[in-house]
Amino acid sequence: MSFAIKLHLSPYLNHNLQTTTHQAKLTNCSTKFRLKPIYHSNQLIHFEGGRRKFKMQGSSGTGLSIKSSLIDPDGGVLVDLVVPESERGLKLKEAESMPKVSLTKIDLEWVHVISEGWASPLRGFMREDEYLQSLHFNSLRMEDGTVVNMSLPIVLAIEDETKEGIGSSKDVGLVAPDGELVGILRSIEIFKHNKEERIARTWGTTAPGLPYVEETVSPAGNWLIGGDLEVLKPIKYNDGLDHYRISPQQLRKEFDRRQADAVFAFQLRNPVHNGHALLMNDTRRRLLEMGYKNPILLLHPLGGYTKADDVPLDVRMEQHSKVLEDGVLDPETTIVAIFPSPMHYAGPTEVQWHAKARINAGANFYIVGRDPAGMGHPTEKRDLYNPDHGKKVLSMAPGLEKLNILPFRVAAYDTVAKKMAFFDPSRANEFLFISGTKMRSYARNGENPPDGFMCPGGWEVLVKYYSSLQAEEAKQEPAVLSA
Amino acid sequence: MSFAIKLHLSPYLNHNLQTTTHQAKLTNCSTKFRLKPIYHSNQLIHFEGGRRKFKMQGSSGTGLSIKSSLIDPDGGVLVDLVVPESERGLKLKEAESMPKVSLTKIDLEWVHVISEGWASPLRGFMREDEYLQSLHFNSLRMEDGTVVNMSLPIVLAIEDETKEGIGSSKDVGLVAPDGELVGILRSIEIFKHNKEERIARTWGTTAPGLPYVEETVSPAGNWLIGGDLEVLKPIKYNDGLDHYRISPQQLRKEFDRRQADAVFAFQLRNPVHNGHALLMNDTRRRLLEMGYKNPILLLHPLGGYTKADDVPLDVRMEQHSKVLEDGVLDPETTIVAIFPSPMHYAGPTEVQWHAKARINAGANFYIVGRDPAGMGHPTEKRDLYNPDHGKKVLSMAPGLEKLNILPFRVAAYDTVAKKMAFFDPSRANEFLFISGTKMRSYARNGENPPDGFMCPGGWEVLVKYYSSLQAEEAKQEPAVLSA
Repeated sequence: MSFAIKLHLSPYLNHNLQTTTHQAKLTNCSTKFRLKPIYHSNQLIHFEGGRRKFKMQGSSGTGLSIKSSLIDPDGGVLVDLVVPESERGLKLKEAESMPKVSLTKIDLEWVHVISEGWASPLRGFMREDEYLQSLHFNSLRMEDGTVVNMSLPIVLAIEDETKEGIGSSKDVGLVAPDGELVGILRSIEIFKHNKEERIARTWGTTAPGLPYVEETVSPAGNWLIGGDLEVLKPIKYNDGLDHYRISPQQLRKEFDRRQADAVFAFQLRNPVHNGHALLMNDTRRRLLEMGYKNPILLLHPLGGYTKADDVPLDVRMEQHSKVLEDGVLDPETTIVAIFPSPMHYAGPTEVQWHAKARINAGANFYIVGRDPAGMGHPTEKRDLYNPDHGKKVLSMAPGLEKLNILPFRVAAYDTVAKKMAFFDPSRANEFLFISGTKMRSYARNGENPPDGFMCPGGWEVLVKYYSSLQAEEAKQEPAVLSA
Repeated sequence: MSFAIKLHLSPYLNHNLQTTTHQAKLTNCSTKFRLKPIYHSNQLIHFEGGRRKFKMQGSSGTGLSIKSSLIDPDGGVLVDLVVPESERGLKLKEAESMPKVSLTKIDLEWVHVISEGWASPLRGFMREDEYLQSLHFNSLRMEDGTVVNMSLPIVLAIEDETKEGIGSSKDVGLVAPDGELVGILRSIEIFKHNKEERIARTWGTTAPGLPYVEETVSPAGNWLIGGDLEVLKPIKYNDGLDHYRISPQQLRKEFDRRQADAVFAFQLRNPVHNGHALLMNDTRRRLLEMGYKNPILLLHPLGGYTKADDVPLDVRMEQHSKVLEDGVLDPETTIVAIFPSPMHYAGPTEVQWHAKARINAGANFYIVGRDPAGMGHPTEKRDLYNPDHGKKVLSMAPGLEKLNILPFRVAAYDTVAKKMAFFDPSRANEFLFISGTKMRSYARNGENPPDGFMCPGGWEVLVKYYSSLQAEEAKQEPAVLSA
């Protein structure tokens, strides 16, 4: 049996034509069962792809419900590369006899990311075939012909001497910055690290001053080493925030435990202001309107490398928890967790990674705003990316068809209503955009932002942070002068 | 009914794992019929995708044969944007009343390319959605969810003043460099031309000195204009070579008229030497071995813009015809035609375009050699691209699954056998690589290349060309000195 339904879109999703106009196709036979999400006007009919489970929510609100989670991980199975505790001793012994590759702090963040399956179906640092597909197509074609999104090259660079040391060995041991042997890379492949090409195709510029490039690509070796990863034990940071580092597997379990029938993820790397809260709460409201009974928000700050002038993770986590304490977001329907990936600031290329990783974590809705993962051009006075390209590219990206993309209008401070509101271009001069720089200058000068911009508890955390920064700078300045 | 067969590869195709390990899937129902090419060991079983036709060649050599051509054009229908003669007068009148956009010589080449369907299913210069998909994914997703390859942004740039002149008009007239009104672009969309991003993502470098960039991108306007193209009459060049400019539609008819059961395309922008001939003849031999009865070679030199130090088109066409006269290639089984596209020199990104356009022209096999569409890095002493990346990227490229990619070992002059032969690394020092520069220096100095490098008739054409160049240079030098 094969049938096709031409889809009608919910007005809510009408920015997202590309991902929602697919025809639904149902092949009914004993061995295969493939379904794509389809929408019928405002009445959501929800099919989940995959082999083992599907869920249907019809107009009555009841229906079949055979499910273990809301959305299949990419590749069908969530990758988990942490070796069982019983094998740890043996593997460690084996690793000790292998040639060693030293990891930087950021490499170790990637080991963490890969090992927990955020990058499923990737099972290690990329070999050349994966690297090339990522660079050129932002996606990987699997053996069965299906396509998964993979927009950032997830690679491990090594120096010439390390390559020589490895010689013809098939496997290498991975050593963390603190000297601990943390993993094994098996059936390795070493290939040229053409930094210029990698940078140009990932960032769409080779201008000097891209934070991730300066931090990790430029100083890195001229070779990339790919292979299958095994991690000897779960990666921990011991920074008091490990309880926020919830793996995709744990998140999926938690969503099931809470009986979520929709999970919407919100990625951020900045403090949460009331504009963010507005759109998260508005998303929840709309999902309820669409017929969902228990939508859960995954508030998912990025926890890996960020550039020096971003607010550090510990401050952001404290700020986020105040936002929940102050009741701006409802703790009952919100999960706050850390997304352990480093930040590339690669705009439309990176936003795909941010969305794809959340599929693996079990989110079936993804919120995207203005200029996601963007920044100012490092050498020109303009945004590096067209602020609309992120959501456009996301809505057309290969492998993300099963994810529901929720593009959002930008929120700004409405000086008349004295609160954060969706920007209304017809009365543009009544809105105030409060940038990170602006926030910083408020905090520096001991000024408060306008009423309703951020909850007082959250703002207090930032004031404390910025004052400590100022004190730090004051201490350092004389030292610089005397040098 | 749905079944899957795990594939075995012909040793001939074993570089091409990604495109040949797909599972064949047959959905048997009244409205749909989708097949992908599958191979079973050396015995070729050949299914053609598409709605209206398929062909099966079993072990007996006989079998079903319902076909109008060997491979479906991308999107299912070959695009043809030349308006019928009967409508020409009316359309011309209409175009005269529209705001005008001036085309460069290279823009006009693209008008030619798009109008004849080489870029099917593209129906005009790209709008932003197509542009972004091309830049980020090297492919376009169609409304029905299928994916076609589209690796180069095919765009038309305009200046600020032209944009102002267009105002809110929906359609514009396109004016050739000689002032003739050649076409209409309808339902236009104007968007920002971010040159830096376009260059970085297309070439993988922003180094100065990329020929196509210097010629067409850098001097171009800051806006791109997309829309649906109509061409008022077929584009002609009146350079004595128009009879070689055979459209995809005409090529498909010719392949059918010759009852070709395989068409293998060879793209080049250089004179044909015996190394090229070796691999074209070897391909034919192997196709015969595989059971094909009448493989036809499409010798398909690129006829649009090339860089200044490439041999010009008229000289190449004369050289190619000598190669056929001299019997190096068999005219009975060869069609020589011009591929009207301009050259980007964008390596792995461009080779996909070269292959995709040949699908539209009806070729179901594509030969790819070392460093296709490559060149030296414009500012560093190295190849711009890894010479193996072209064939790797091609074999994994989205939308090219239905094309059979034939990767070839490099041919060089075997000084022992005194002929062009496949390079044998075990006796590397007995091989001589004869580059374009080397050929040029032979011709300049009145020397002959080694026996067996190129047929005498073909070599004569080059000697004549290079001598005329020298005469030209000699004439120009004193003028420069006296300036």
